[in-house]
Amino acid sequence: MTPIQPISVNKAAARLVARLIADASELRIGVTRGELGETLIDAGSKSLGSIAAGLRIAEICMGGLGNIRLVPSAAAPRWPWTLVVQSSNPVVACLASQYAGWRLTDDEPKRPFVALGSGPARALARREKLFEALSYADDAATATLIIEGDRPPPAKVVAKVAADCRVKAEDLTIIFARTQSLAGGTQIVARSLEVALHKAHELAFPLERIIEGVGAAPLCPPHPDLVTAMGRTNDAIIFAGQVQLFVTGPAAEARTLAERLPSKASRDYGRPFAEIFKQVKGDFYAIDPMLFSPAEIIVTALETGESFHSGDLDLDLLDASFA
Amino acid sequence: MTPIQPISVNKAAARLVARLIADASELRIGVTRGELGETLIDAGSKSLGSIAAGLRIAEICMGGLGNIRLVPSAAAPRWPWTLVVQSSNPVVACLASQYAGWRLTDDEPKRPFVALGSGPARALARREKLFEALSYADDAATATLIIEGDRPPPAKVVAKVAADCRVKAEDLTIIFARTQSLAGGTQIVARSLEVALHKAHELAFPLERIIEGVGAAPLCPPHPDLVTAMGRTNDAIIFAGQVQLFVTGPAAEARTLAERLPSKASRDYGRPFAEIFKQVKGDFYAIDPMLFSPAEIIVTALETGESFHSGDLDLDLLDASFA
Amino acid sequence: MTPIQPISVNKAAARLVARLIADASELRIGVTRGELGETLIDAGSKSLGSIAAGLRIAEICMGGLGNIRLVPSAAAPRWPWTLVVQSSNPVVACLASQYAGWRLTDDEPKRPFVALGSGPARALARREKLFEALSYADDAATATLIIEGDRPPPAKVVAKVAADCRVKAEDLTIIFARTQSLAGGTQIVARSLEVALHKAHELAFPLERIIEGVGAAPLCPPHPDLVTAMGRTNDAIIFAGQVQLFVTGPAAEARTLAERLPSKASRDYGRPFAEIFKQVKGDFYAIDPMLFSPAEIIVTALETGESFHSGDLDLDLLDASFA
Repeated sequence: MTPIQPISVNKAAARLVARLIADASELRIGVTRGELGETLIDAGSKSLGSIAAGLRIAEICMGGLGNIRLVPSAAAPRWPWTLVVQSSNPVVACLASQYAGWRLTDDEPKRPFVALGSGPARALARREKLFEALSYADDAATATLIIEGDRPPPAKVVAKVAADCRVKAEDLTIIFARTQSLAGGTQIVARSLEVALHKAHELAFPLERIIEGVGAAPLCPPHPDLVTAMGRTNDAIIFAGQVQLFVTGPAAEARTLAERLPSKASRDYGRPFAEIFKQVKGDFYAIDPMLFSPAEIIVTALETGESFHSGDLDLDLLDASFA
Repeated sequence: MTPIQPISVNKAAARLVARLIADASELRIGVTRGELGETLIDAGSKSLGSIAAGLRIAEICMGGLGNIRLVPSAAAPRWPWTLVVQSSNPVVACLASQYAGWRLTDDEPKRPFVALGSGPARALARREKLFEALSYADDAATATLIIEGDRPPPAKVVAKVAADCRVKAEDLTIIFARTQSLAGGTQIVARSLEVALHKAHELAFPLERIIEGVGAAPLCPPHPDLVTAMGRTNDAIIFAGQVQLFVTGPAAEARTLAERLPSKASRDYGRPFAEIFKQVKGDFYAIDPMLFSPAEIIVTALETGESFHSGDLDLDLLDASFA
Repeated sequence: MTPIQPISVNKAAARLVARLIADASELRIGVTRGELGETLIDAGSKSLGSIAAGLRIAEICMGGLGNIRLVPSAAAPRWPWTLVVQSSNPVVACLASQYAGWRLTDDEPKRPFVALGSGPARALARREKLFEALSYADDAATATLIIEGDRPPPAKVVAKVAADCRVKAEDLTIIFARTQSLAGGTQIVARSLEVALHKAHELAFPLERIIEGVGAAPLCPPHPDLVTAMGRTNDAIIFAGQVQLFVTGPAAEARTLAERLPSKASRDYGRPFAEIFKQVKGDFYAIDPMLFSPAEIIVTALETGESFHSGDLDLDLLDASFA
């Protein structure tokens, strides 16, 4: 009988990374070795990258536990391509792996480095408070980290990441792409499900009750300006993202989750993200964290079979952001 | 030159089953050996299972002759995920393999067993009257059977299935999942095309004339009650299923098929399935068999290039069923 | 580290062709050897072929540089299945490989042969004027050519193709399918992106500026008459095709491209293609070449992040063509 493989988001990612590297030419990504022997993949900085690379990276971010497809959708007719993501392990895929929650810094005065790491390596290192709520831990001998930014971390940070992951630096892969790039924008819009899960956690919904998730959000046009680009990736989800979660536990709690989950439930809802960001002068933490969530939510309570719908798409605001 | 492989729904299924088992952890399915050495896969009974498992099982049911994808669709906006199924061998895939038509019983007084077997094993055993209309027969040395239910068959039934399939019990795989489970509901809603083909056969349309088929139906939320769960899987197809068949032969016969095929053509159309089922006190055979078919039908006559449209979606009734 | 593979549309096609041949039975295609040892694949002439074969051939036409999926779409509700094509190398995939631009003729008086070859072999031979605008050249030792027609080329033409591609005839694969066939129609409707790229080139837009493309067009019902069948494949794109291009360079030029690209910008727009073709008595070159393009266009200027929308779907004309 075929042997059953335990879930390892980094082992699954390593298989996807090998294919990513093999197809580097057609994906327009750059592959080099860093100072400590780590594999560096430039998917949208000096290398142009591609939407196809973004789709692959999005699946790497989820440690192979999510299916992501670019398909047409008539939900937002002016922006006809949507990124649909399905995961039967949404908590592990999205929160233990995909979420950009690992703060990596180097205070080297000449060239300080700050980035939020995402992807499977996080499930090895488990350095974030979020992991107190997550039982999953990986024990793979290889690690893959994704960085939204224009350069890989300096050697000091690489060494720390490898040590925290308990892997050799040469067994660490770091993929980086700017938010403004084709791959960067694509892999961020593929986070509709992750954004819903993270907000569910902020709302104190017990994560172990979230069994399944499906999400979609329209592919956004990249923008050369960082704030505008970031705004569009957020707005794709905030104004036009759709997510369905399947949860266990009391239906009343599923209903409450549905009511509170959509972006519309935030006091900051109503303007393109870039405008809000400029108004608070770039102080991310001045923005209501409840804003970061999909426009339309369905929560299905497995216990009673009820589905709770809440929120809806706002195509005018989507146009205002993408135009 | 690459050797051409003859069509074997069980050989194709065996390859898919090997992947299913390898991914058992992430699919939340249980894999054990039964009394006679048969492989037992619990995809939604004691094991929780998953939508991802349901999608895989649906392709196993079709013996590898169908492509099934979960994608967004604006056709039924409140239920945004649809299961699309495409097969260029719809008669073999759906009727010789996928259809749940093999009645398996054990009259053991203490714990009687009744189930309808579906999947590739049927094309080895060919025990049903339906096979009089089907020329396809498989001759693989492995068999895969799918059961909609909460437990695998008792040893006596397993031995009979293996014997009827002319395989050793250890080369038989039995996958089971309750209708109420995530995988169970998913694999049933993936039967939009099969339901259309079966009704075409009931309408005496010659099966050898059905060349191609594409179908879709919205993913239904599971329900803990068997009748309600079964009702929803049926209603997904009856109220919101869309199927296109490509047929040879006279266009007039294609037109007649299109007119008679949609669920609306049934005298029992108009209420959620669970209501009808309760009214007839669970006597399945008191329900008009013509009810079991997709809401919207296109039949394309290859002989003349004409397409005949009939029926349409009823989103209110869909809501009444899924809500 | 995994070795990076240079882009070779013919090597990628060879891998896809091997799978096509292995699955010949289920795809209903015929595989033989020709007079000079070339592999001949009949996907829709004496062999019936299939939609599934058409989808595979469409990916072969793009030399593995495009993803093609048949999915539901509510954009044209009466024709619910759409073929979506995504390529991060649209110029190489569509123009150096997929475009049907290689005129192959044999003036043998008894049985003259004329066909337009498409697919990866073109990128080896590079015999067309179009290649003056394309920097890509393949150097694979195998070649794959696709022909829209009912028979493979005669030996004289096969020898010339092999010589032009610098491959042995036994390393040449020729796939042929009639426009009227299931596979033929499918692989043509999968050309929405190619049609947009070719028209962009006709409009003198610099090809090296087209970085990414996504397109979709509804699956058309085949028709037994050649002109009607050809008309439907064209009309699927002309009346209901949607394409988004991502381009570099000045936004003003992206805007002009968007305005000129949709089919509606042609003087011949407004009637099913078969009608126009009959009116000009089959003189293809009397038809405005600007007609051959998708109905709805988005051009995104990467330099400024602006997107320019133009054209729209015409579902009545689509119905007039498909009905």
